[in-house]
Amino acid sequence: MNSIKLRLLLEQFFIEDIGDRDVTSELIFGNEQTGNMVFIAKDNGIFCGEQVITTGFRLMDDHCLVKINVRDGEKVEKGQELARISGKVSALLKAERVILNLVQRMSGIATKTNEAVIALDSVKTRICDTRKTTPGLRMLEKYAVRCGGGYNHRYGLYDAVMIKDNHITFAGSISKAVETVKSSLGHMVKVEVEIETKAQLLEAIGSKVDCIMFDNRTPEEIEKWIGIVPEGILTEASGGITLDNLNSYRSCGVDYISLGFLTHSVKSLDISAKVIAEKKGELPHEYIGVSRS
Amino acid sequence: MNSIKLRLLLEQFFIEDIGDRDVTSELIFGNEQTGNMVFIAKDNGIFCGEQVITTGFRLMDDHCLVKINVRDGEKVEKGQELARISGKVSALLKAERVILNLVQRMSGIATKTNEAVIALDSVKTRICDTRKTTPGLRMLEKYAVRCGGGYNHRYGLYDAVMIKDNHITFAGSISKAVETVKSSLGHMVKVEVEIETKAQLLEAIGSKVDCIMFDNRTPEEIEKWIGIVPEGILTEASGGITLDNLNSYRSCGVDYISLGFLTHSVKSLDISAKVIAEKKGELPHEYIGVSRS
Amino acid sequence: MNSIKLRLLLEQFFIEDIGDRDVTSELIFGNEQTGNMVFIAKDNGIFCGEQVITTGFRLMDDHCLVKINVRDGEKVEKGQELARISGKVSALLKAERVILNLVQRMSGIATKTNEAVIALDSVKTRICDTRKTTPGLRMLEKYAVRCGGGYNHRYGLYDAVMIKDNHITFAGSISKAVETVKSSLGHMVKVEVEIETKAQLLEAIGSKVDCIMFDNRTPEEIEKWIGIVPEGILTEASGGITLDNLNSYRSCGVDYISLGFLTHSVKSLDISAKVIAEKKGELPHEYIGVSRS
Amino acid sequence: MNSIKLRLLLEQFFIEDIGDRDVTSELIFGNEQTGNMVFIAKDNGIFCGEQVITTGFRLMDDHCLVKINVRDGEKVEKGQELARISGKVSALLKAERVILNLVQRMSGIATKTNEAVIALDSVKTRICDTRKTTPGLRMLEKYAVRCGGGYNHRYGLYDAVMIKDNHITFAGSISKAVETVKSSLGHMVKVEVEIETKAQLLEAIGSKVDCIMFDNRTPEEIEKWIGIVPEGILTEASGGITLDNLNSYRSCGVDYISLGFLTHSVKSLDISAKVIAEKKGELPHEYIGVSRS
Amino acid sequence: MNSIKLRLLLEQFFIEDIGDRDVTSELIFGNEQTGNMVFIAKDNGIFCGEQVITTGFRLMDDHCLVKINVRDGEKVEKGQELARISGKVSALLKAERVILNLVQRMSGIATKTNEAVIALDSVKTRICDTRKTTPGLRMLEKYAVRCGGGYNHRYGLYDAVMIKDNHITFAGSISKAVETVKSSLGHMVKVEVEIETKAQLLEAIGSKVDCIMFDNRTPEEIEKWIGIVPEGILTEASGGITLDNLNSYRSCGVDYISLGFLTHSVKSLDISAKVIAEKKGELPHEYIGVSRS
Amino acid sequence: MNSIKLRLLLEQFFIEDIGDRDVTSELIFGNEQTGNMVFIAKDNGIFCGEQVITTGFRLMDDHCLVKINVRDGEKVEKGQELARISGKVSALLKAERVILNLVQRMSGIATKTNEAVIALDSVKTRICDTRKTTPGLRMLEKYAVRCGGGYNHRYGLYDAVMIKDNHITFAGSISKAVETVKSSLGHMVKVEVEIETKAQLLEAIGSKVDCIMFDNRTPEEIEKWIGIVPEGILTEASGGITLDNLNSYRSCGVDYISLGFLTHSVKSLDISAKVIAEKKGELPHEYIGVSRS
Repeated sequence: MNSIKLRLLLEQFFIEDIGDRDVTSELIFGNEQTGNMVFIAKDNGIFCGEQVITTGFRLMDDHCLVKINVRDGEKVEKGQELARISGKVSALLKAERVILNLVQRMSGIATKTNEAVIALDSVKTRICDTRKTTPGLRMLEKYAVRCGGGYNHRYGLYDAVMIKDNHITFAGSISKAVETVKSSLGHMVKVEVEIETKAQLLEAIGSKVDCIMFDNRTPEEIEKWIGIVPEGILTEASGGITLDNLNSYRSCGVDYISLGFLTHSVKSLDISAKVIAEKKGELPHEYIGVSRS
Repeated sequence: MNSIKLRLLLEQFFIEDIGDRDVTSELIFGNEQTGNMVFIAKDNGIFCGEQVITTGFRLMDDHCLVKINVRDGEKVEKGQELARISGKVSALLKAERVILNLVQRMSGIATKTNEAVIALDSVKTRICDTRKTTPGLRMLEKYAVRCGGGYNHRYGLYDAVMIKDNHITFAGSISKAVETVKSSLGHMVKVEVEIETKAQLLEAIGSKVDCIMFDNRTPEEIEKWIGIVPEGILTEASGGITLDNLNSYRSCGVDYISLGFLTHSVKSLDISAKVIAEKKGELPHEYIGVSRS
Repeated sequence: MNSIKLRLLLEQFFIEDIGDRDVTSELIFGNEQTGNMVFIAKDNGIFCGEQVITTGFRLMDDHCLVKINVRDGEKVEKGQELARISGKVSALLKAERVILNLVQRMSGIATKTNEAVIALDSVKTRICDTRKTTPGLRMLEKYAVRCGGGYNHRYGLYDAVMIKDNHITFAGSISKAVETVKSSLGHMVKVEVEIETKAQLLEAIGSKVDCIMFDNRTPEEIEKWIGIVPEGILTEASGGITLDNLNSYRSCGVDYISLGFLTHSVKSLDISAKVIAEKKGELPHEYIGVSRS
Repeated sequence: MNSIKLRLLLEQFFIEDIGDRDVTSELIFGNEQTGNMVFIAKDNGIFCGEQVITTGFRLMDDHCLVKINVRDGEKVEKGQELARISGKVSALLKAERVILNLVQRMSGIATKTNEAVIALDSVKTRICDTRKTTPGLRMLEKYAVRCGGGYNHRYGLYDAVMIKDNHITFAGSISKAVETVKSSLGHMVKVEVEIETKAQLLEAIGSKVDCIMFDNRTPEEIEKWIGIVPEGILTEASGGITLDNLNSYRSCGVDYISLGFLTHSVKSLDISAKVIAEKKGELPHEYIGVSRS
Repeated sequence: MNSIKLRLLLEQFFIEDIGDRDVTSELIFGNEQTGNMVFIAKDNGIFCGEQVITTGFRLMDDHCLVKINVRDGEKVEKGQELARISGKVSALLKAERVILNLVQRMSGIATKTNEAVIALDSVKTRICDTRKTTPGLRMLEKYAVRCGGGYNHRYGLYDAVMIKDNHITFAGSISKAVETVKSSLGHMVKVEVEIETKAQLLEAIGSKVDCIMFDNRTPEEIEKWIGIVPEGILTEASGGITLDNLNSYRSCGVDYISLGFLTHSVKSLDISAKVIAEKKGELPHEYIGVSRS
Repeated sequence: MNSIKLRLLLEQFFIEDIGDRDVTSELIFGNEQTGNMVFIAKDNGIFCGEQVITTGFRLMDDHCLVKINVRDGEKVEKGQELARISGKVSALLKAERVILNLVQRMSGIATKTNEAVIALDSVKTRICDTRKTTPGLRMLEKYAVRCGGGYNHRYGLYDAVMIKDNHITFAGSISKAVETVKSSLGHMVKVEVEIETKAQLLEAIGSKVDCIMFDNRTPEEIEKWIGIVPEGILTEASGGITLDNLNSYRSCGVDYISLGFLTHSVKSLDISAKVIAEKKGELPHEYIGVSRS
């Protein structure tokens, strides 16, 4: 992750939630009051959010200490203490909701991705995401997919070519679309084509694209077609695939299965935050700089 | 909604998705190629997102025409045409994903809120949201809750006081916490207290707060306690309430039920976008200025 | 105050004043030259601006030491040393004017508010501000009002309903306006109505608003009408009230008097900054972290 | 004025005041309701703010019509209609307060500047401002000074050299300070020196500075010293000059008198806004593009 | 190009150059004075900058008319009129320098790229750019390379993997580095490896990378090695290649030659701007919407 | 330089280059891997960029140590070690390209300026820059000119008046243009006029401008005319002056020669960055705070 971008995002989110002040905490807590906050998992799942916690709390109180007990991508169980932060109580309470909203969402995505990987249960085929992420959070959500054991499809419209039915219609044919693109495209950008019929498949192969996406095809169709695809061209399945039918794709031979629901329909992983009165000397706080990518 | 804020958000989101350019559409479509895009519901639900569609497409092509066939908060059915946009094809395709991501999410929230209202089926009790919104999207998500028939709880830490267990612990007691706050709070800010026991309820009533929240209480407990609350103090139930058990709260007499899942665990409403080749003279396009709040 | 927002504001203000460089100080002072700057009150008043001083100087020189001798809201007298900053001379001189401009203005507002509180001399009635603040400085100016002993009216159009004559005219009547608002308003937002006649007062009471504002009424009228207002509805007087006639309202019984002049017509409190040559060992500098809200 | 910067400032200010929405106007007015707003002077003074009104209202409603009856710098009288805006009522009411706060403040500065010009009543000597402006509003406040008949001193630390006592102390002497600066300064930047004694005056003259500022000197001292200053070096008086004693400087011969109070202690010019129900055909609205500098 | 990003960049650049106002033009030209500005090529080269001209002038005067006589990528000759803009004279003069600075630079890059393409004179081998662009201008400079007949290498660190000597050293070997990357990389991202020896070449081929870069190799070495590279792996030459020796690479068989000097050492194409007094009826101005990508 | 502005620029540039992540370094290097990076000059020239290096690397890794072996404006020779940075390898590699792009460009400008100073070889006449800088980089490029021994002309349209032929045409004559400007200009802003004929020269002198620019005049013409210019008016030559003919101006007596090519056609100074494996105890790292202006 880009740590500068993360900081700017967190500043934006804190301003959204705090506005000009926290009318509750600022009126109740003196500025000197310190304490500890612990994050506890309230459900089982995959954790994701180390950097959000570290960067977030330090933005609100640059002297606070952050100890995280679990690494991004690790399993957590209901009741497990995930992190412990020591600092000014008013800062801890101001930062709590924004950080929880992000960490719960990222952990929810990592958990859902992991469920998909397990449901698929394939040695060859990988799970990947789509561009159906929450606007403004793409960097965080794509990171969470990786932490859950998934892979990233393209990040945006800028880093890979994806030729869909709309493009094909206007260009006249797959080969014309690919030819047009390749004549002016840089050599470090991959080209993927979306196909629905065998005729399209053959045309795509003939156009020497880097990747072919089977749109809304059954595992049986894919298995039949995949033999035609020469080595060097990757394949992807997409459309109508859910946690329930995912396992039926486990041995169809496709390289990637992209799943929009990993990010567009997220169930947050439940995590609670509790403030604990400070007892000097009792708690070993060591700051653990966390910035895995 | 604040239309200036909406425009700035959309600019941020388009830059996230498009980056320096759309390597697919810019290479395939000439700048003069025009066409139509239609949005079709692929599921039943409540629509939300008029302003996002209008402002979004016009940011990408200020000469495009936008016609929206449904108003925010209205029911839509699978297969129904929701909107039709006419303009440069490359602009339509560049804008499509960001706008869909937002509109599907907002419609998903409106739909879920509406399901909650129907499940509750109460004349007196209202459904409301929480601060568990997606960071960066609070304005849009709280708007979607209203479109689904729900009400907004406070927007952030700045517009209402919410005294929780953490605050009470540090202040010493509910009455001390309320007293401290009120001694310096402006008169246009409401004060709510979270309670878990009858003793706390009585203390909160004695402190003349504006609102009392029953935290994790059963409908039966609430029904018993609500009689003690004098007129003029509003009540709210929160914690452990799901679509499944919501109806059991319908006649407990509480004024508001706040539901975190309305925004923290959203299932997007499925909407697809199709590009249609332009046939001159055939399509009556009239721009409908949409900016409901 | 929101410390992140304060930092972003200060960055904006320093860029406004310094532009690409300070052509005077950068050419005269070497980067190694250190020294002390003291802030001296040149008039009597109420001080306000601890966080501005601390955050401001540290933005320009993150190794500087800041010692503030007075807390926000305390009285200061002509000649009194308010603060002492030790660091690079070029940084001190670059930061001086922006910080003084803010602190003098905030102290001016605190001082004027305090004069109003003293002039009113009431046990029951409180002084509050309005939205007539300087664009861009609302957070700082509303904070200054609190430091002077005043209270904050709503922060903006977003955190409280204020129904004025224009709204009433278009809605048809006070009751219709209130009813319309309440039917879709969240429960944590208060509703105030502006009234000018007894008929309007009775209608407002009947509508169960949270607060009634007597617009341009004499103390005598207010005293007569206040008896009609039931407990639980707050009252506010506004319009035509100055430091000169404020005392005549001291026993009319109104809860709040809102004064636009606290922020729209400010006289800065005079404060001067002097640079003192560094004499090692002489000055006890300890950094005092200041971030009261 | 820089129209791009003005638009960005207004966006910032509208977001400060409106936040996520105007809870009053959005709930009462339908989006289709149109009407007129008039600005009326409630006191005599000098008007300033054409561009703020035009740009501001059009940011909130790009179809609104703005007619301004007075030009920046012109006298207005109590009761005079200054401007009339026709558009959506909700947009007019949302924009009203921010625009009034700016226009009242700018007109207050123009009015105060004009009072200073009249009080001075000099053919030779000009009134100018200082850097004691409100952080964030320098462009607008310096413009207002010009509209009131005053002149602008330097805009910031970047566009002119100003050697004060602090600089002189560290450099060793005026001549050394000036020499140091000139050895690396570009030829389009002027150099001014602040002096308090005749010895300093002679040294400054010897250093061939562009401008000499008499700091806290009486009109008599200035009159005596001014004869020594050779043609080609401008003179400025500053410090301890008020509206009351300004006239005593009218014939001392100084070129400029700089007055901090023009901007640091402003009394807004009172202006009210009224909404008028639309009567079709009655009001001649023509848009007057206003963008004087 | 991303038109939203272009507009935000231009706003930033205009603010850099204009600051709070244009002290020359604003004082001399009334706001009503209109006229025409023409852009004339003062040297031969390749033009680039249509969108910058159109968007730039319209930002300063949204009623101005812009006619561009040449398309991006076309040859222009000394003396040729490139564009004609009609609008307020003060707006034309304010916008002139920023727009010229960009268009001259972009045209300089397009011209230099074109010279490289001509010098290389190869059917098979393409010229491409590097990340050695001017910070802040990458979108514009990479676009200019395309307009000159070149191709884009990766846009940044985010859209393609580039394994250099530093990475190889730390990973242990090329195969380990590639393996590590591929185990977690998405399928739409290409992997390139930089090699200097034949042993490295063979290792890279064995690792099945997408592209191999010959770092600082002579055309002779490349020609010898290229036969070993299997079809499907692209090749790139880089390091020590100048306009002078470029032709010696024309038949070595490499796919791409990347040239840092296209963007890091630019000679602007000389273009002048002249203002012409308006003569009504004489000039046919039609706005040509320009937004090629 | 303004250190706040520098930091904001660097944040913008890092986001441009890194985007959401560095797909190469983040996948290969663990977060704990530390090492050293050295900057080596690959050509002779003048160095410029201390603050960019220090601020840039510390933005990416706030614990890194930076040691710079050369000061801005000093000569460097091919092979010389310029700087050594110790920190996390992934941070060093992420920051490398942006910092090099800036430092190479700034050093290129300083070097070219220095060549101009040497070519001119004059005691009296100084070299200065123009507004033909790269949009977004003016602060850095004008600083580089100073480091190379040159002087800065005006920074933008805001800090000095420059009356060119276009202005003169519209104003009617030089004297009218100057008079118009001076009647409303502040006293700290200089006025320069561009002239091409002796008649214009005499008119400019009569108008008492601060500076006269000889546009496209030969050294002989300038030498003849310079005698007419009274003391107190500065002179500048501009137009058609190159490194080749610069020496012919050495004794024409003009005060300043402005050269657009210093910034509009830059050849970067070649600098390479190498990563060195960490060997504990071997390298003496001391952080040298660098912030010369």
